[in-house]
Amino acid sequence: MAYKDEQLNEEKVFKDPVHRYVHVKDRVIWDLIAAPEFQRLRRIKQLGTTNLTFHGAEHSRFNHSLGVYEIVRRILYNFENRPHWNDDERLLCLCAALLHDLGHGPFSHSFEKVFKLDHEHFTQQIIMGDTHIHTILERVSPGFSKKVADVIDKTYEDKLVVSLISSQIDADRMDYLQRDAYFTGVSYGHFDMERILRVMRPIDDQVVIKSSGMHAVEDYIMSRYQMYWQVYFHPVTRSAEVILSKILHRAKYLFETDYTFKLKPMHFISFFKEKVDLADYLKLDESIVSYYFQLWQEEDDEILHDLCERFMNRRLFKYIEFNPNQQMNEWMELYRLFQEAGIDPEYYLVVDSSSDLPYDFYRPGEEEERLPIHLMMPNDELKELSRHSDIVEAISGKKRTDHKLYFPKDLLEELSDDCPAKRRILELLYGEGAGNNVN
Amino acid sequence: MAYKDEQLNEEKVFKDPVHRYVHVKDRVIWDLIAAPEFQRLRRIKQLGTTNLTFHGAEHSRFNHSLGVYEIVRRILYNFENRPHWNDDERLLCLCAALLHDLGHGPFSHSFEKVFKLDHEHFTQQIIMGDTHIHTILERVSPGFSKKVADVIDKTYEDKLVVSLISSQIDADRMDYLQRDAYFTGVSYGHFDMERILRVMRPIDDQVVIKSSGMHAVEDYIMSRYQMYWQVYFHPVTRSAEVILSKILHRAKYLFETDYTFKLKPMHFISFFKEKVDLADYLKLDESIVSYYFQLWQEEDDEILHDLCERFMNRRLFKYIEFNPNQQMNEWMELYRLFQEAGIDPEYYLVVDSSSDLPYDFYRPGEEEERLPIHLMMPNDELKELSRHSDIVEAISGKKRTDHKLYFPKDLLEELSDDCPAKRRILELLYGEGAGNNVN
Amino acid sequence: MAYKDEQLNEEKVFKDPVHRYVHVKDRVIWDLIAAPEFQRLRRIKQLGTTNLTFHGAEHSRFNHSLGVYEIVRRILYNFENRPHWNDDERLLCLCAALLHDLGHGPFSHSFEKVFKLDHEHFTQQIIMGDTHIHTILERVSPGFSKKVADVIDKTYEDKLVVSLISSQIDADRMDYLQRDAYFTGVSYGHFDMERILRVMRPIDDQVVIKSSGMHAVEDYIMSRYQMYWQVYFHPVTRSAEVILSKILHRAKYLFETDYTFKLKPMHFISFFKEKVDLADYLKLDESIVSYYFQLWQEEDDEILHDLCERFMNRRLFKYIEFNPNQQMNEWMELYRLFQEAGIDPEYYLVVDSSSDLPYDFYRPGEEEERLPIHLMMPNDELKELSRHSDIVEAISGKKRTDHKLYFPKDLLEELSDDCPAKRRILELLYGEGAGNNVN
Amino acid sequence: MAYKDEQLNEEKVFKDPVHRYVHVKDRVIWDLIAAPEFQRLRRIKQLGTTNLTFHGAEHSRFNHSLGVYEIVRRILYNFENRPHWNDDERLLCLCAALLHDLGHGPFSHSFEKVFKLDHEHFTQQIIMGDTHIHTILERVSPGFSKKVADVIDKTYEDKLVVSLISSQIDADRMDYLQRDAYFTGVSYGHFDMERILRVMRPIDDQVVIKSSGMHAVEDYIMSRYQMYWQVYFHPVTRSAEVILSKILHRAKYLFETDYTFKLKPMHFISFFKEKVDLADYLKLDESIVSYYFQLWQEEDDEILHDLCERFMNRRLFKYIEFNPNQQMNEWMELYRLFQEAGIDPEYYLVVDSSSDLPYDFYRPGEEEERLPIHLMMPNDELKELSRHSDIVEAISGKKRTDHKLYFPKDLLEELSDDCPAKRRILELLYGEGAGNNVN
Repeated sequence: MAYKDEQLNEEKVFKDPVHRYVHVKDRVIWDLIAAPEFQRLRRIKQLGTTNLTFHGAEHSRFNHSLGVYEIVRRILYNFENRPHWNDDERLLCLCAALLHDLGHGPFSHSFEKVFKLDHEHFTQQIIMGDTHIHTILERVSPGFSKKVADVIDKTYEDKLVVSLISSQIDADRMDYLQRDAYFTGVSYGHFDMERILRVMRPIDDQVVIKSSGMHAVEDYIMSRYQMYWQVYFHPVTRSAEVILSKILHRAKYLFETDYTFKLKPMHFISFFKEKVDLADYLKLDESIVSYYFQLWQEEDDEILHDLCERFMNRRLFKYIEFNPNQQMNEWMELYRLFQEAGIDPEYYLVVDSSSDLPYDFYRPGEEEERLPIHLMMPNDELKELSRHSDIVEAISGKKRTDHKLYFPKDLLEELSDDCPAKRRILELLYGEGAGNNVN
Repeated sequence: MAYKDEQLNEEKVFKDPVHRYVHVKDRVIWDLIAAPEFQRLRRIKQLGTTNLTFHGAEHSRFNHSLGVYEIVRRILYNFENRPHWNDDERLLCLCAALLHDLGHGPFSHSFEKVFKLDHEHFTQQIIMGDTHIHTILERVSPGFSKKVADVIDKTYEDKLVVSLISSQIDADRMDYLQRDAYFTGVSYGHFDMERILRVMRPIDDQVVIKSSGMHAVEDYIMSRYQMYWQVYFHPVTRSAEVILSKILHRAKYLFETDYTFKLKPMHFISFFKEKVDLADYLKLDESIVSYYFQLWQEEDDEILHDLCERFMNRRLFKYIEFNPNQQMNEWMELYRLFQEAGIDPEYYLVVDSSSDLPYDFYRPGEEEERLPIHLMMPNDELKELSRHSDIVEAISGKKRTDHKLYFPKDLLEELSDDCPAKRRILELLYGEGAGNNVN
Repeated sequence: MAYKDEQLNEEKVFKDPVHRYVHVKDRVIWDLIAAPEFQRLRRIKQLGTTNLTFHGAEHSRFNHSLGVYEIVRRILYNFENRPHWNDDERLLCLCAALLHDLGHGPFSHSFEKVFKLDHEHFTQQIIMGDTHIHTILERVSPGFSKKVADVIDKTYEDKLVVSLISSQIDADRMDYLQRDAYFTGVSYGHFDMERILRVMRPIDDQVVIKSSGMHAVEDYIMSRYQMYWQVYFHPVTRSAEVILSKILHRAKYLFETDYTFKLKPMHFISFFKEKVDLADYLKLDESIVSYYFQLWQEEDDEILHDLCERFMNRRLFKYIEFNPNQQMNEWMELYRLFQEAGIDPEYYLVVDSSSDLPYDFYRPGEEEERLPIHLMMPNDELKELSRHSDIVEAISGKKRTDHKLYFPKDLLEELSDDCPAKRRILELLYGEGAGNNVN
Repeated sequence: MAYKDEQLNEEKVFKDPVHRYVHVKDRVIWDLIAAPEFQRLRRIKQLGTTNLTFHGAEHSRFNHSLGVYEIVRRILYNFENRPHWNDDERLLCLCAALLHDLGHGPFSHSFEKVFKLDHEHFTQQIIMGDTHIHTILERVSPGFSKKVADVIDKTYEDKLVVSLISSQIDADRMDYLQRDAYFTGVSYGHFDMERILRVMRPIDDQVVIKSSGMHAVEDYIMSRYQMYWQVYFHPVTRSAEVILSKILHRAKYLFETDYTFKLKPMHFISFFKEKVDLADYLKLDESIVSYYFQLWQEEDDEILHDLCERFMNRRLFKYIEFNPNQQMNEWMELYRLFQEAGIDPEYYLVVDSSSDLPYDFYRPGEEEERLPIHLMMPNDELKELSRHSDIVEAISGKKRTDHKLYFPKDLLEELSDDCPAKRRILELLYGEGAGNNVN
């Protein structure tokens, strides 16, 4: 039997808290899961620093990847024998679902920003490069790995296949919303996925939703909205992200200025040089990062060791609402005052802005255009979701941004009362109300 | 206000997936949670290698410790103003609950066995030694840290206090059963804790259960039974434990025989020498261990790098049922055949035995005597649980043991067919049925 | 001890699927629950005919009343010792919560419309009249029953007390959303009530929500929105309501026109005469109604027995979208055609319109003014919810209406093809698309 | 297309709180559900009087019947294409599952005992008699109704088919345990049904369980055990059953002794005469019974109206532990004392005994022999469950019985203190401890 058609003797299952069971019958899927590049995802948390806010959120990307695979498996089970659906694409979809996050590294958000990386680029490299994953995919058929990579890259010609993995209501989002809700324990993130799966219909180039399922989709979009603001953009999590970024910045700066590390940052050198090859990249997981951060607590550089201590022991920065666009003068004054007080504002005075667009209708030609969700009406006509749903219409296309200013409250309070800058800093940060609004 | 009485301005909560919210009002508890020795528990998984079997089980001991604290907080809330209960012990109970697992290191089970350590010993050291935790506890009152240590050590004079933390139905067990069930996703581990808390009554020297709550306790004991056999003793998890132990053994052996490591095992040296002081111990968490295991994949020693690769990439040993007491001859023959085939049986042929006693009645004077659970009948008489419950009686005092033999199926199959040992090994392991029973 | 202060020896609990346990400690509450007028609520379903659509929705108003009581109990537990809160009002609040729906009869919606009744009027009568409930309340203190009645009637002077039971985020709504979701099994209706209860704060004349809890309130409002459109206004349920109303209309009409019933409608006579006294009212519950409807299946009047058969055996009317304001001509034509075909349009051609206002800001002076929800900002300022929440703002003050036309598809199809009206009726109802839109 | 093969255009679903969705695709099933005899099950509660103890337990047998159907549907989906399984039996299994409880009447337990009825007999009659159900089944193929009846009657030749509906681990039990747990809200009743369905295997004449699923089955058996003792045999529920039985007895007695009822018990006459035909039987549902009980509250017969008032208003009997076999003398003395005090012991002094056998191994030839559960070992050998599971072995074959004595505490306390019997009755019932054990 051809490798691509090989089935396990007995279906294997993974016990999954979110989908109850993840079912595997294809030998190819089983082999991909066993590949070291996929097992590596066990050592990368799905939500980076979020566990410092929600202690349950310690789940890995391995977890999520299996979940996305399982959702696509169930969708395709429903699609079997439907018009428009070509069952030959089944294995391709399953592989793309399983592997779509393969290129994520530790704390991707901060690492990508500081070191100018892109996890999607590495996903492509792992699939196409000299890896176990690549070997397995090519065994399916020569060129199959390229197809998988293209689906994930959204360049694959069959847009219906692409839309299963990447759209405004794809398996990726449906898994992470539910999974992140489960592990954080928040009560958002619930929606009737079983119903959504039942009303999904493949048409030429996209998956659409039967209009009778509209309310389940509304619920999903509201879940997404709440998860973004309640979990993903939680200000405490962002405080940890801010410190993490500053550690990376500082280490890079020290490296570039020939500081002598007690613990030589071997795993980081190619990152500092911004020349990361695949082998270097694959070696870096969260335990490695944690190893360095722990040992850097004993470095002589005060900023590096202070920031590492903060990160490891969760002594985070405090924050206030602060809009840099509207408060430029205060910002400049604070910056100067921090310098005066001997607290380097490059590392200790940080604005972080988060923004989200909960749902977008179609704006062709615009940057980051997103495929909207279409409802299929009883007469088979398609209707863009926000034209039919009052709720979705209300939040559609509206970007919301949140700005916060982060700083080390403890350091400021330890400043001598003689320090002329201290009083003014506290005044600016805490306002008249004696700090009621500092969190 | 005395430090011990200080309350936070506003109650703080942690969102917890198992108990919904963990509530903190006491400044002391808040400070203990923030201490580095407590934050370190974030880097130690509650269930060690279980996540290689149940991928959701990535939760940390930090998680569990908060949970035990919360359960005790709820119990004490119910105890307020009850006869027999001295509310002055409240803070002591809360601290002991929070800190009871403080001395756990990475993969405690294997580390303790290989390096002859005892996490309870380190719990005592962290509480009594030169640590942030100790300083905070002594601020409550001089000698308070010793009290906390004694409660955890079960030597504290007020046995009622001890029994909240350590008994056959203590807060520790109630938390971990539910928590481990939640994160693995298994359907065992559920019982009506709210009811059990409502029927707990303090008497002189123990917590007893009103007889009307007996069935909830039965359910709890059955949950425990199922969790042990379905989750904690899962044979795949034990396979990972076996490999982990063998890595530690091998590294120790190499160190003792002056092998030159490419990556010098600095963090491990005091462990190899079996002279671990508190500072060394606290530095070792799972990310450090993972760092070494990853780098040891590149060591020259074949056994060390093979075992590390297996552990990191989850290429585990397979297993069969095997009772070494009854199959001594087969064992000796296999041992010899493995040597003959060039596969070191010290590392690659391992029997693991797990056993559990689901519930025990009282056997005074015997080793490991356990306080039984007492029911309080309507007439205030006490009755030992197993005398009143048919189900508990049925499993009471019955130890069950499971023996498995672990081995690397892949290595055996790679042996040349010319190897005279191969055929006989396979025959012994797989039996006539051609391997049907190998897992 | 005064009756009002009497406590049960031991707290009693009701096992409740929604709130886990309902706790009762006050003798007064215990006695009220045992009163026949309260026990009668067991025989009145919370959701009338909804169980014909969602078969799980068979729960009674007894169920819901206990739930509202329990929520208020929890709120008041949090309010204890807070500024603005007068703990003397506690028992009053609990009684009002428990009894707020006492005046509901069977299938209130239809009965009230057909017989021009008002359940709130009967709630007042039961509390103030010659009933067990009244006797119990007056034992608390003379005039106490009037206070309870006033709170439920929203005329009680302490508006803070009123707002617990009747506001846009009261205990009533919080219970029924969760309870109805639980029993129907839908995935809407979930929100983090525990968090909402934690952020509720009493001020002078209302309960406000700490702004940190805004998202939980958003979630609650979205739940409400979804429950209205997905459950309460489900078109199949409304079909059953339509038939039920028509049965009542027909029976009244027959009574007024001196039809001789085989089963004399003794229980209904005062209803038909629109002179219902309290004793008559209390005697009518859903089993009595069901008794009549079953026996009326054997009446000679064709319309009455047909409608009763439909209701008992769930042979409901079908429906199409139909807006009577915009389709007046079609309506008139259909009406005439039905007459022509010998199907009485008074009973067999019915428009039902449902509308809901998911949340309303304050419009003083307008009919049905509703108290808006206020957030308490960190600086103690109050802010109306829709000014702070994008989502709520989006749906605020927007009334949505749904119109459907109901008719007996089976009867129409049984019409002889010779009947000249038949073709035209089908054309008008089913449109060109041959009935695709008929449900 | 043959009627038996007809499929609905679009799959229909029922939202079900327990199984999420019940799926219907076969026209036959759809028609059976719509039949009046099946719709009648909506008016018969699954758990009779249990809702007087657990107020959530108001769900109907309609609910449960759909659930059993759905479980069988899922089992058969897994069986498709398996050896031993004949897919031609599919529709037969589904119909038998759906209809297996069709003959239940109101409060079956008491009615059957008092009037010497048997619901299974009526199930057969409805399926074979002149009913809509029969007509539908015969449309499938002549004789099909007999096959369905035989499967339910366990006389069908293919025992594999029978065992799906009736065995110690059948779809019936799996549904009711979960459903009753859901609606009562108790925490028992949970087990991993999804796993059990996955490990069920058809063999010649029974369904067996792969041994890897043994623990899920243990959990199921423990659930059953707990549900029996915690819910089904709850002493308060039995108190209501006792009163209900006594009402029926009294009414029958009055009828037989030519008492003149104000409300003539027309619906009951054939029951009193123990000559119930199908038409009479089908007319009696719980709303009819409730109608009579309410009106009988106004009968002159004191016993009848007192008992009816108790039942409708939940003024139940109290109870103590009492073993009639061992306490014959007390029993006789109490009986005499009740007579002396003018309280008829036939109606007011009642012993109720409940017993359950949680699991039974096979005892061929004995009365009520039950097919045991068989595990299929890896080598395909069958092993009876209790030989492999310690827990099951422990409770296997052990019948447990609970005896309680019920009496009206209120009536006794209202006796004049001069009544010489009063003091002695109270002494016997409450013991020295002044009533501590009376519930």
